[in-house]
Amino acid sequence: MADVLVVGCGLIGTSIGLALRQAGQDVLLHDTDPSRIATAARRGAGKAWNSTQNASLVLVAVPPAAVAAQLYEAQRHDLGRTYTHVTSVQSEVQSEVEALSCDLSSIVGSHPLAGRETSGPDAASADLFVGRPWAVCPSPSSADEAVEAVLALVETCGATPVVVDAGVHDASVARLSHLPHVLSAALAGRLTVAPGQGTDLSGPGLVDATRLAAGDPALWAQILTANAGPVAQELRAVVADLSALAEDLGASLEPGAADAARERVLAFLTRGQQGRAQVPVKRGERSAAFASVVVEVDDRPGRLAALLTDAGELGVNVEDVRVEHVPGRPRGSISLVVALDAATRLAEGLSTRGWDVPQARGPGQ
Amino acid sequence: MADVLVVGCGLIGTSIGLALRQAGQDVLLHDTDPSRIATAARRGAGKAWNSTQNASLVLVAVPPAAVAAQLYEAQRHDLGRTYTHVTSVQSEVQSEVEALSCDLSSIVGSHPLAGRETSGPDAASADLFVGRPWAVCPSPSSADEAVEAVLALVETCGATPVVVDAGVHDASVARLSHLPHVLSAALAGRLTVAPGQGTDLSGPGLVDATRLAAGDPALWAQILTANAGPVAQELRAVVADLSALAEDLGASLEPGAADAARERVLAFLTRGQQGRAQVPVKRGERSAAFASVVVEVDDRPGRLAALLTDAGELGVNVEDVRVEHVPGRPRGSISLVVALDAATRLAEGLSTRGWDVPQARGPGQ
Repeated sequence: MADVLVVGCGLIGTSIGLALRQAGQDVLLHDTDPSRIATAARRGAGKAWNSTQNASLVLVAVPPAAVAAQLYEAQRHDLGRTYTHVTSVQSEVQSEVEALSCDLSSIVGSHPLAGRETSGPDAASADLFVGRPWAVCPSPSSADEAVEAVLALVETCGATPVVVDAGVHDASVARLSHLPHVLSAALAGRLTVAPGQGTDLSGPGLVDATRLAAGDPALWAQILTANAGPVAQELRAVVADLSALAEDLGASLEPGAADAARERVLAFLTRGQQGRAQVPVKRGERSAAFASVVVEVDDRPGRLAALLTDAGELGVNVEDVRVEHVPGRPRGSISLVVALDAATRLAEGLSTRGWDVPQARGPGQ
Repeated sequence: MADVLVVGCGLIGTSIGLALRQAGQDVLLHDTDPSRIATAARRGAGKAWNSTQNASLVLVAVPPAAVAAQLYEAQRHDLGRTYTHVTSVQSEVQSEVEALSCDLSSIVGSHPLAGRETSGPDAASADLFVGRPWAVCPSPSSADEAVEAVLALVETCGATPVVVDAGVHDASVARLSHLPHVLSAALAGRLTVAPGQGTDLSGPGLVDATRLAAGDPALWAQILTANAGPVAQELRAVVADLSALAEDLGASLEPGAADAARERVLAFLTRGQQGRAQVPVKRGERSAAFASVVVEVDDRPGRLAALLTDAGELGVNVEDVRVEHVPGRPRGSISLVVALDAATRLAEGLSTRGWDVPQARGPGQ
């Protein structure tokens, strides 16, 4: 008996296969598309399933709408002892497997909070889940051994298990993942609507704010409708906040009401700033723990490489790099995101090494 | 007579001074805070104004609420021939200078679409405006010579002038700049509200989507209330879209209405994806012109430097770098954003040089 049968060799399924193989486990791979099995196998994620072999754990990693049927089929052929999936919405799958009269004791849903802009087995990585949260959502019927088996899988993949009720999970991702996607799409959608003056006057903020809207509409329609209740609830709350803000902005134009309205606008923005401080920028840490060091550099690739080499030699770990490219001119600016307590040391060290670091220039800042 | 008197030595005023000095112009600097004048002068942005000298052009770069009064004072002392400012909302300043009975023929408002996360004269850069749009907003009373003088300033700073009516400008930035800020703040604000499960289950998308919310609430309250009408109008449109989506999500749960509702959810997301394709990711270009090449690397600063050196040697210009840091493990993944037609060449070239580039591995992707 194999350790794990992975059904669905996309980004997530293949990445799990790679992580398990790295830990020495015996992995079988299946997909409706044979070329994806071949790619995943060539990448080292496991061996093709021969359609009769069974496994200790069956992991279903297919699009949301197909998950329950795959779990049902796998149980019907008695392919595993424990069954899990990696769907971004949990309650719907729980209801569906119940309706299909699956054996609920051996099923424990889960959801790794990982992913990247690309998809498919070629984009997979054994390290995709390292340091990431991974929700594990037992139902009231789940057997303890089944929960243990899924927790062991999560830990083998290097993720941090978060055991949570399916409903709490779904409310949480509605706010932290589905709402951001919807707001990004709503904003980007406005750019298609008249009267518009195009994007001639857009600045760099619009790029970040619309990035999520690039995601696959068909997949996201599945995700949003699968979590329709909690997402609608978050939307109604945001609609209330934005309606109140629109009203306050209107009132800010009326002499008698202006001061109170401005205070409410300020309170809205302050709440946003407080919320932002709670966002983990580096996995598991908060944004207030990081600072940017801006360096003005010649805009040639070699300069960026040299800059990062110097940062490394100064013993500073660069968490993120943001490049402000200036076409047609030989300069640009680079932001290095580092731990707050390393920022001054990095700025001064780079300045000493001859880099143009505005914030290290004098006492004025 | 000096070429330009800069009133307000913040990020924008000092950056303009630096750009003008680089072009050989004679620049005078003023600020209510003498330490900012000293910093700007030390950076090479010009010389401290002696309070009587005048200039061909007076540029007011102070917070929005103080702009009209500064223009009025400068005209009262006959300090310049032409007067401009760099305020992010134009109509309000136009009304204010009219109400103050300023000489309207010599005033032409303007607004550079530039900026960075840091502020103050230390963060200034002569290249801040290069390749960026810079709105120039004459009023019906503006003299042609005054418009020419401001256009010349914009071009000296390396920006692309966009001559536009103040009202059109304000409607445009309401959509492209103020709305993204408000949506980011609304999203981040939800993180402070019960019932919440914290951010334990957040993924990387939340980081981008809440970045703008970190901006200074006091400054943004000034900006939003100065552009209250157009921002409220954009908000009402987004509120209508989000309310409809919430309703469609509700209807997707009802057997009879589900299919039509799902179609509308899909249409909403598709519109967002289309809008995203119109966003200029690199200055002056559209996001569809770029692609990411993901490379799995050892998570040491020296590896990132070596990677960028190799990209440079392959003759590929890296437009942006995104680092996915994996704490506690010696690997991470790096996305290099490059021109679409260079992506395959980069992926294959890096792969040949021994880098782990998933998308160059096989025909499956």
